[in-house]
Amino acid sequence: MGSGNVVAIVGVGLIGGSIGLAMRRRDPDCRVVGIGRRESSLNEALRRGAITEATLDRAEGVAEADVIVVCTPVGRIVEDVCLAAEHCGDGALITDAGSTKGQIVRQLEQRLPPAARHIVSGEPAAAGSSSATRPGGVFIGSHPLAGSEKAGPSAARADLFDERVVVITPAAGDRHEDVERLSRFWESLGARVQRMDPETHDAVLACTSHAPHVIAAALAAATPADYLPLTAGGWRDTTRVAAGDPDLWRQILMSNRDHALKSLDEFAKTLSAFQRALATGDQAAIQQLLQAGKTRRDAVGS
Amino acid sequence: MGSGNVVAIVGVGLIGGSIGLAMRRRDPDCRVVGIGRRESSLNEALRRGAITEATLDRAEGVAEADVIVVCTPVGRIVEDVCLAAEHCGDGALITDAGSTKGQIVRQLEQRLPPAARHIVSGEPAAAGSSSATRPGGVFIGSHPLAGSEKAGPSAARADLFDERVVVITPAAGDRHEDVERLSRFWESLGARVQRMDPETHDAVLACTSHAPHVIAAALAAATPADYLPLTAGGWRDTTRVAAGDPDLWRQILMSNRDHALKSLDEFAKTLSAFQRALATGDQAAIQQLLQAGKTRRDAVGS
Repeated sequence: MGSGNVVAIVGVGLIGGSIGLAMRRRDPDCRVVGIGRRESSLNEALRRGAITEATLDRAEGVAEADVIVVCTPVGRIVEDVCLAAEHCGDGALITDAGSTKGQIVRQLEQRLPPAARHIVSGEPAAAGSSSATRPGGVFIGSHPLAGSEKAGPSAARADLFDERVVVITPAAGDRHEDVERLSRFWESLGARVQRMDPETHDAVLACTSHAPHVIAAALAAATPADYLPLTAGGWRDTTRVAAGDPDLWRQILMSNRDHALKSLDEFAKTLSAFQRALATGDQAAIQQLLQAGKTRRDAVGS
Repeated sequence: MGSGNVVAIVGVGLIGGSIGLAMRRRDPDCRVVGIGRRESSLNEALRRGAITEATLDRAEGVAEADVIVVCTPVGRIVEDVCLAAEHCGDGALITDAGSTKGQIVRQLEQRLPPAARHIVSGEPAAAGSSSATRPGGVFIGSHPLAGSEKAGPSAARADLFDERVVVITPAAGDRHEDVERLSRFWESLGARVQRMDPETHDAVLACTSHAPHVIAAALAAATPADYLPLTAGGWRDTTRVAAGDPDLWRQILMSNRDHALKSLDEFAKTLSAFQRALATGDQAAIQQLLQAGKTRRDAVGS
């Protein structure tokens, strides 16, 4: 495979648990080490068969891993990657599953020693790196575009990544073979891999995920509680993501504020056009806006 | 049953077709007359078993019906109810399935002869009504809170109304027995009936359905086409209703403009609070808004 026989997963929630289940679907004999902060989550992940061994000790957990996937909340990823890089074996590939990439990748470029990031294969080692045999781990960011408003290892599914896009965000100096190795890892879980730079990723995802979350939460929050019995499928669909964990989403939004604000501004402009058309009874404009929404929505499918 | 053995359905789309399927699920021998403007829809409804006979002739179609359900787009309902009232037999119960009620009920109060609306059982007939045997049809408005972004008789389902709310909007002079009869009709299709006045209905549905539709359409329209490959389940859920028919939704919005605008204003205020919290990096405020959305959403269930 080239994508590692021992995988360590830091944070065995929905995403981490699903990575374990997908790994073991592919290769029932592989070792999946679950690393967590709570025994209860690790036990549930073991019970589900999402991991084959569990530990609360991060240093020990990553020591033998070929691939380490940090699946903790966005606000903890940088620390968790640094900790993994410090304790993993030479040549380990470290990635994450965070919904934002710019801030995480920028901070890790500063925090990780150059040897752990920029080693050009076959060339003399740069100052500060000890050799071309790659001491410590190599980090490349990932974002699997899969998830759910549900959380925890009990919601994990072996098919969560099937046919889903995983964006990976290689930096300028990353070795081609590491990028390929990360791509093969996600593809082996059923995903389609797309490479982007971290800033482009964050601009696009602000529009397709982070702003929609704010909009859904605002819509749910603006609905009086005594109207809820008269909601139907439309309201339920439109607000579904608002059931997501406020802690996780606050961190995502804080980590991508500028892009999220820009996307919300764009949305607010379109909404204002709708409000004006309604206020003036401009049927042609209303029809045109509804049609524009339908055209975009139909392009995606159910 | 008291809810009629012959049902005429004017407009055999998703709602009309589903009424027919639900009727025949309850009573395989009942007659369901489908009335439409296009042979193709009527043939599809016949093929699906949603109706037992079909006609393009509205007068003929309603002549023998005990219950007539007008399932045409909101902008056509008043005319179609008047036409049905003119040609139906004495004592026929006429209702509709429109997503708005205020304008429709107000216009029908003016358009239908008093005899077709206000006959007090057992009392002397009021001026203008010929007798207590109820000449012509009696109209009471309905709105089944069931539907889909899909349209046409091919999307119809026998279980569309199971456990769904149907709001009925009796007017002051409606006879108790007619209101009961309409309730039993919808209940026999699996629905739970709730009585409201038309204006209250429109205020609530503006918030729970009409404004969410505008918001979903605006969100879809504001998403650049080249970002669509990087949408996932969240965007798909949040924008799902935007795939609905722009013609139908323009009519719904035009028919409930004032309430829809008020609901959109309320939403825009909540969204602005979100934008301010993000712009200033006020994590407590962001968390509070996300939690408010989650609390409302969790109260409804998946």
